[in-house]
Amino acid sequence: MRTDFEAYSPTEANFVPLSPVSFLARAADVYANRTATVFEGTRRSWAEVGARVQSVATGLRGMGVDTGEVVAVFAPNSPAVFELHFAVPVTGGVLCTINTRLEPETVAYILDHSAAKVVIVDARVRPVLDAALKMADSQPDVVEIANVGSAVSCGYETLAMTPADLFLTGPADEWQAITLNYTSGTSGKPKGVIYHHRGAYLMALGTVAGWQVPQAPSYLSVVPLFHCNGWGHPWMMAIMGGKVTFTHSPDAASILAAIKDEQVTHFGAAPVILQMLAENSDQTRFDPPVQAMTAGAPPPPAVLEKTAAMGMDVMHVYGLTETYGHISQALWERDWDSLDASTQADYRARQGVAFPMVENVAVINRDTGQPVPRDGITQGEIAIRGNTVMKGYLGNTSATEDAFEGGWFWSGDAAVVHPDGHMQIRDRLKDVIISGGENVSSVEVEAVLYRHPDVATAAVVAKPDVKWGEVPCAFIELREGADPDAGALIAFCRSHLAGFKTPKHIIFTEIPKTATGKVQKFLLRALAKEG
Amino acid sequence: MRTDFEAYSPTEANFVPLSPVSFLARAADVYANRTATVFEGTRRSWAEVGARVQSVATGLRGMGVDTGEVVAVFAPNSPAVFELHFAVPVTGGVLCTINTRLEPETVAYILDHSAAKVVIVDARVRPVLDAALKMADSQPDVVEIANVGSAVSCGYETLAMTPADLFLTGPADEWQAITLNYTSGTSGKPKGVIYHHRGAYLMALGTVAGWQVPQAPSYLSVVPLFHCNGWGHPWMMAIMGGKVTFTHSPDAASILAAIKDEQVTHFGAAPVILQMLAENSDQTRFDPPVQAMTAGAPPPPAVLEKTAAMGMDVMHVYGLTETYGHISQALWERDWDSLDASTQADYRARQGVAFPMVENVAVINRDTGQPVPRDGITQGEIAIRGNTVMKGYLGNTSATEDAFEGGWFWSGDAAVVHPDGHMQIRDRLKDVIISGGENVSSVEVEAVLYRHPDVATAAVVAKPDVKWGEVPCAFIELREGADPDAGALIAFCRSHLAGFKTPKHIIFTEIPKTATGKVQKFLLRALAKEG
Repeated sequence: MRTDFEAYSPTEANFVPLSPVSFLARAADVYANRTATVFEGTRRSWAEVGARVQSVATGLRGMGVDTGEVVAVFAPNSPAVFELHFAVPVTGGVLCTINTRLEPETVAYILDHSAAKVVIVDARVRPVLDAALKMADSQPDVVEIANVGSAVSCGYETLAMTPADLFLTGPADEWQAITLNYTSGTSGKPKGVIYHHRGAYLMALGTVAGWQVPQAPSYLSVVPLFHCNGWGHPWMMAIMGGKVTFTHSPDAASILAAIKDEQVTHFGAAPVILQMLAENSDQTRFDPPVQAMTAGAPPPPAVLEKTAAMGMDVMHVYGLTETYGHISQALWERDWDSLDASTQADYRARQGVAFPMVENVAVINRDTGQPVPRDGITQGEIAIRGNTVMKGYLGNTSATEDAFEGGWFWSGDAAVVHPDGHMQIRDRLKDVIISGGENVSSVEVEAVLYRHPDVATAAVVAKPDVKWGEVPCAFIELREGADPDAGALIAFCRSHLAGFKTPKHIIFTEIPKTATGKVQKFLLRALAKEG
Repeated sequence: MRTDFEAYSPTEANFVPLSPVSFLARAADVYANRTATVFEGTRRSWAEVGARVQSVATGLRGMGVDTGEVVAVFAPNSPAVFELHFAVPVTGGVLCTINTRLEPETVAYILDHSAAKVVIVDARVRPVLDAALKMADSQPDVVEIANVGSAVSCGYETLAMTPADLFLTGPADEWQAITLNYTSGTSGKPKGVIYHHRGAYLMALGTVAGWQVPQAPSYLSVVPLFHCNGWGHPWMMAIMGGKVTFTHSPDAASILAAIKDEQVTHFGAAPVILQMLAENSDQTRFDPPVQAMTAGAPPPPAVLEKTAAMGMDVMHVYGLTETYGHISQALWERDWDSLDASTQADYRARQGVAFPMVENVAVINRDTGQPVPRDGITQGEIAIRGNTVMKGYLGNTSATEDAFEGGWFWSGDAAVVHPDGHMQIRDRLKDVIISGGENVSSVEVEAVLYRHPDVATAAVVAKPDVKWGEVPCAFIELREGADPDAGALIAFCRSHLAGFKTPKHIIFTEIPKTATGKVQKFLLRALAKEG
């Protein structure tokens, strides 16, 4: 074998570890004068954002944030959270954005499990964090974004004024952790999904190709930044020099107003948000069309029809927290333009084909290890391989090994492949409910139900829902003598669970079990679907 | 320091070495039925191209091509050369596309220097290769693309029918060599620039973002595939599922006809080609506009004006063989649309700002190591850092070390930076002439001139030229008694040099030298410019 081509090792000139920090370094220079962020009257250029990120990073370093230390963020989308997607990586630390819809117990669990050193909180959700901190063992330093609190270690704007001595460079190792995203899986406890710099870089650059994002898009930040880091969109905006607008709240009026005021060209949002926009539309049509990426559930035909009438081009994508967000897309072929509306809606709702940066998305029969035939009938499990698959679950080697069995990441979604190569999900193999784009662990909901004195057996499954995609539906066997009171059980759940996790339906019935006593959830899912 | 984030090593599920082979594997699946290549009535789908590439790779492996072995290609652009951009990497081998305009002596040098195991030749340029093989020490196996020759080891179409047992997977190491591109540098001998799989992957994906390439572009293959592998465009087309059309020859009529017939949306070509198209345009305007990437020289204002009138959006990019092609672009800002035509032409002709996949492009004062101020006046040398910088020069450690001094690749181009951050070249520090997009080493031309019995001293510099950008201009001191006969000297050069290297002007004069006898080329360049 010839070896003369291998004579040269990487040097500083020809090897730079992949990191999305590079995109900001370039944006602060190349797009210096373009607007980067817009929020409540404050506009900042990419040069300003670059400078603020260096200051915030330097300030965090002063608080002890170094390689591998976790900075938790508990906040709705805002320019500060956007900046932290670059500032924490600059320190070498790991950004952990926490779902603001979670109950304090789970927030406390995440703060403890991640061993967060600092938590950055938006004043608007401060009470939930305070409740969580009371329950948590760890006591991270608290930084408040609005800078109005009293009992905070420091304010975010104070950090942003730190004289910078960290600059916009990534880590020496592109495999280094960059963010931590907690997901509800099949077990009750959230798992901490680790992303690395290499994956974040490729996710952002691959999404430009897959979504065909142009120069200087006007982007509205709707998809929560605590979901897969907003599907990697903050990093992508740095590549294209986009303008990123934030609304005070994600209500329909604010979003529709922002789209008009800032001439928004792109946003990402769950189908439930698209539906909300459609219901609140004033019938004017966006021209040119607004590009909407949607994920979390297939967009229903009615939503696709309404958003099309509003002037929105919806691209349905599919992915999981473990895959940095989207890894496949219902890629549109031009010759489908002539299909009837119903077929078009079906095609747009499929999970589709691999994104450009993904190495392989296959639907595999786990018994044989072989891909299923492309017949639109035979089911297999969606399996993914590529550089935008998580590093692993923090502190959970066995779950990580299970997830990567045989060299694939197993999605837990059962799907078919159509003759044109597009995948479509038919069933869920994991015991998880996806409601309004949020994952709900049925095990966690069941555990709360079992705490109620009247409950003998509880089994929670997904029930299809026009608005939310799915909602939790609880089947209950009561103890002898207990009264069936659905309202009381729902209220009990709500006192222990976030709203989106609380069952919307309670069905009192005998629960079908196998001979060995295992609940037959597939029968319950069928019942829930009918009922 | 926390280390729990570093607990996981890469697995097959979450780490795949970057390689453009992945793009073809995906294209053969996702874009299976789309047209991939068009040439003289033959259309092949991406599925067919994927299958042929596997066969060609398997056939080459049968000829002994394995990791690090060189497959040379001497051919104008065609589907075969396009396929070889994937097939050779699949074998682990290194693709070396040789400039078909070179004289046999240099082709022989490249075959020997690269130690090519196989050479694939298009029947149209077979005589030059045969002449080269007579001069070469090495005797690679010959494969002819048209499959009509007699004295060939095998025909390309025979290779393409090999039953495949190699599949579309990249190497285990993304730093592995993928291609070898010979460049004329400051010395007379071409240097072999090594590209690796990682760089080729990032070049292609970054170009999608930088050029804003849409889904399913219709691409015309004009820029020679022997120039930086056609600027990485073959690999990029696999990302977006483009249709790649080839013409039998790159003349204006063929190109203009192909643009119309195949509804071409994108192509890349040197400014001299754009000018040729403009001169031969029938005044119809392309609508929608055709996107043209141009490099090799700044496009002159007249060319920009004419191509705009034809319905071409020209994006001027800058780069070198050592940087896989383009690394900066005259990125257009929307608010420049209102500038006057002359300013717009100036802005479009600048070398501009870094591409998205490039880590840093700076203009540096080599004495101080500091970037020059952004005043549009102070000159420094363009220096580049990033993953699309070559691995090194094959078998030339000292030239490689010089090129990477201080952790940058030094371009040899002197430039200023304007207040808006865009670079513009002012002078060339290396002794090279760029004529019609081809690099000409002045040292090589001088060496030929010195072989003529009448020449006492020869010095060759670039002379600005409306058509070619630059042409070689020779200053000659004759020996005593010799007659000044420019025509005879030019004919002598032409018998030893490719046409583009042959001086277009001969000036008989005393040559200015320093006290130590060094030719003062800067004075000659000034003279050439005036004359």
